Amino acid sequence: MHDAAGILLSLLVVFVGARVGEELAQRMRMPGVVGEILAGAVLGPSLLNWVSPDQVLNALAEIGVVFLLFAVGLETRLDDLKRVGVIAFLVGTLGVIVPFGGATVWAHVEGFVWSKSMFIAAAFVATSAGITARVLQDMRALQRREAHVILGAAVIDDILAMLLLGVVVSVQQDGTTNAAHLLAVIAEAVGFVLIVGWVGTRVARRRSNWLERPRMSMSALSIVLALCLGLAWLSTRFGLAAIIGAFLAGLIASETEQRQQLEHHMKPLLTLLTPFFFVMTGVKLDVGVFAQPDALLMLVVATVLAVLTKLLGAYLGALKLGQRSALAVGMGMVPRGEVGVVVASLGLAAGVFNAKVYAVIVAMSLLTSILTPPLLGWLLAWSQQPQDDPQPT
Amino acid sequence: MHDAAGILLSLLVVFVGARVGEELAQRMRMPGVVGEILAGAVLGPSLLNWVSPDQVLNALAEIGVVFLLFAVGLETRLDDLKRVGVIAFLVGTLGVIVPFGGATVWAHVEGFVWSKSMFIAAAFVATSAGITARVLQDMRALQRREAHVILGAAVIDDILAMLLLGVVVSVQQDGTTNAAHLLAVIAEAVGFVLIVGWVGTRVARRRSNWLERPRMSMSALSIVLALCLGLAWLSTRFGLAAIIGAFLAGLIASETEQRQQLEHHMKPLLTLLTPFFFVMTGVKLDVGVFAQPDALLMLVVATVLAVLTKLLGAYLGALKLGQRSALAVGMGMVPRGEVGVVVASLGLAAGVFNAKVYAVIVAMSLLTSILTPPLLGWLLAWSQQPQDDPQPT
Repeated sequence: MHDAAGILLSLLVVFVGARVGEELAQRMRMPGVVGEILAGAVLGPSLLNWVSPDQVLNALAEIGVVFLLFAVGLETRLDDLKRVGVIAFLVGTLGVIVPFGGATVWAHVEGFVWSKSMFIAAAFVATSAGITARVLQDMRALQRREAHVILGAAVIDDILAMLLLGVVVSVQQDGTTNAAHLLAVIAEAVGFVLIVGWVGTRVARRRSNWLERPRMSMSALSIVLALCLGLAWLSTRFGLAAIIGAFLAGLIASETEQRQQLEHHMKPLLTLLTPFFFVMTGVKLDVGVFAQPDALLMLVVATVLAVLTKLLGAYLGALKLGQRSALAVGMGMVPRGEVGVVVASLGLAAGVFNAKVYAVIVAMSLLTSILTPPLLGWLLAWSQQPQDDPQPT
Repeated sequence: MHDAAGILLSLLVVFVGARVGEELAQRMRMPGVVGEILAGAVLGPSLLNWVSPDQVLNALAEIGVVFLLFAVGLETRLDDLKRVGVIAFLVGTLGVIVPFGGATVWAHVEGFVWSKSMFIAAAFVATSAGITARVLQDMRALQRREAHVILGAAVIDDILAMLLLGVVVSVQQDGTTNAAHLLAVIAEAVGFVLIVGWVGTRVARRRSNWLERPRMSMSALSIVLALCLGLAWLSTRFGLAAIIGAFLAGLIASETEQRQQLEHHMKPLLTLLTPFFFVMTGVKLDVGVFAQPDALLMLVVATVLAVLTKLLGAYLGALKLGQRSALAVGMGMVPRGEVGVVVASLGLAAGVFNAKVYAVIVAMSLLTSILTPPLLGWLLAWSQQPQDDPQPT
């Protein structure tokens, strides 16, 4: 029974570390996820060395991130896409294209081959709307037009980011440079996402009362969790990341009548399991990397690039709202948070990123999340003041 | 990323197997847990060989059973103990003593040393009230006096069973026969349970609003889950089974103001995690054992013994209700279900039980649970008919 005791102890240390880290971060007005990752870095081999990656903790981290992306999909309303209109669509699309392009070129200049550069750039793409939503809520600004645009654009951003991630993982695994073959790989990835997403959401919308038909307890939750695990596994068969299947399963589940109940039931699961993902992300972070000046410089450049490219893309998309509001929207799209971290951990697991690139991307994701709340708060207040500058129509 | 895919596939197979097994069992009017364990036996090495025990699945099973016993503790109301009165107390106590004594003697006659015999007998003790509660609910008999006695006695039964399990595990680990040392081991186990239980519930009753004070999301759930993992680990340090600490944590949490909310939040966690425990229980079950006539005979004897000793003990305790009602109460206490299975898996993990004893105990627990619903239904109907026999006062 020594083994069981050892497992319980490592679960206890990771779970308590995560919750304490989150609590401290929130008291310091930082996003909770920052605290969880920093807790992992403190507990991990590069500092205290109380926790090191093992099979069980890695498996729990994998389950945690799969359920996290499932929950992100579950909170994504495809119907909202039709309502958000042209501005949100422009913000979402330009907010993906500009950072992806910018970061690909930067990574290539840093000396990586194109396929690896695109993988790195994928970590610069996805906005983590949760942090922004929290700031908007704190400032009682959720009813302002900028808020609607940001939250609508974040949906488009999520879907595009997943599509892009699917493509770069496929390309990377294949390692091909043949254009025809590359197109086939991309077509397979995009095809999987579009077909599963389209068929699944249509089926879910038409006949979701069968989720309640089985006699087992919690039948709806059980069925969608099985769908989540199933699509996560299936997407790895198509050369995609498991989280893409989980995200698709969430999108499908969000179209069922039990959506709200499912969101409610997912919360305890996320409370228990996502800490393992974030803490293990921190555990794998070699903080010693930043003792080298070139890594620190790379981090500064990557963070500035991440902020400016997202700000520029989203600003251009939102210009119709006026310059100040467009800046606020752009800033609202800056935080990368969990999705950037997920891409970094995928890159590390696949052997694409070395310890330095991994550390830089995780730290960049954290920094964008830490920087956003104060800057966004300031921009939101500023954009509400009477403006003298002429507004474009 | 092959590793992640492999983990997802084994999670998928175990989870879907469990839910399909539960569904089939319930459609055949059997307890769901029977279906989950049989699903494991079918998926395991002795039949299909799709699932075999590995580190990750064993860890998930361990987390599942820890949370299961936490939830059992959470549903145990200490206040109910004061209300159920003398009859329930007699039913609970005699319903533990008679099976424990009978099974210890039987196991010793079968050739086991006394310490091992007591461990085996501990699997004959704990009633699984869930199955009985379901039958009472189906028959709209939850308001009858027999129902109150059964459910009250089940609380006492749970607590005594945990105390007993603590003692037999300590004695077994120590392997001592010195009487003074034995008493010290027992005192340590009982002391741990009583002190932690008493102090914990008193603290929880007085100041449980602090569970809501932290700013983190789901603070109450996070704190009690940490308490559960912490006490589970701590109880292994005292030579007790991890589930005893988890049960104590549940008892403590049940005294907080957030009890109902916590029960609600535990449901999704149990839905995801307990299947791993029950399926792995089945996976480890070598069904080939029952091809040998002596194992089959042992199973029949063990099952008859389990039914008769519990029936006798509880019947004697409930005689004041009249003979027919006392029989109904006795039958209501018969199902062993999950707790018998938990003891069996502890014995297997500790190397105390061989494959045959393990298989017999798991199968006995299942059989008592399968036999109870039809027999209890019949006795409940019979005890309500006009009676000719004289009733004892």
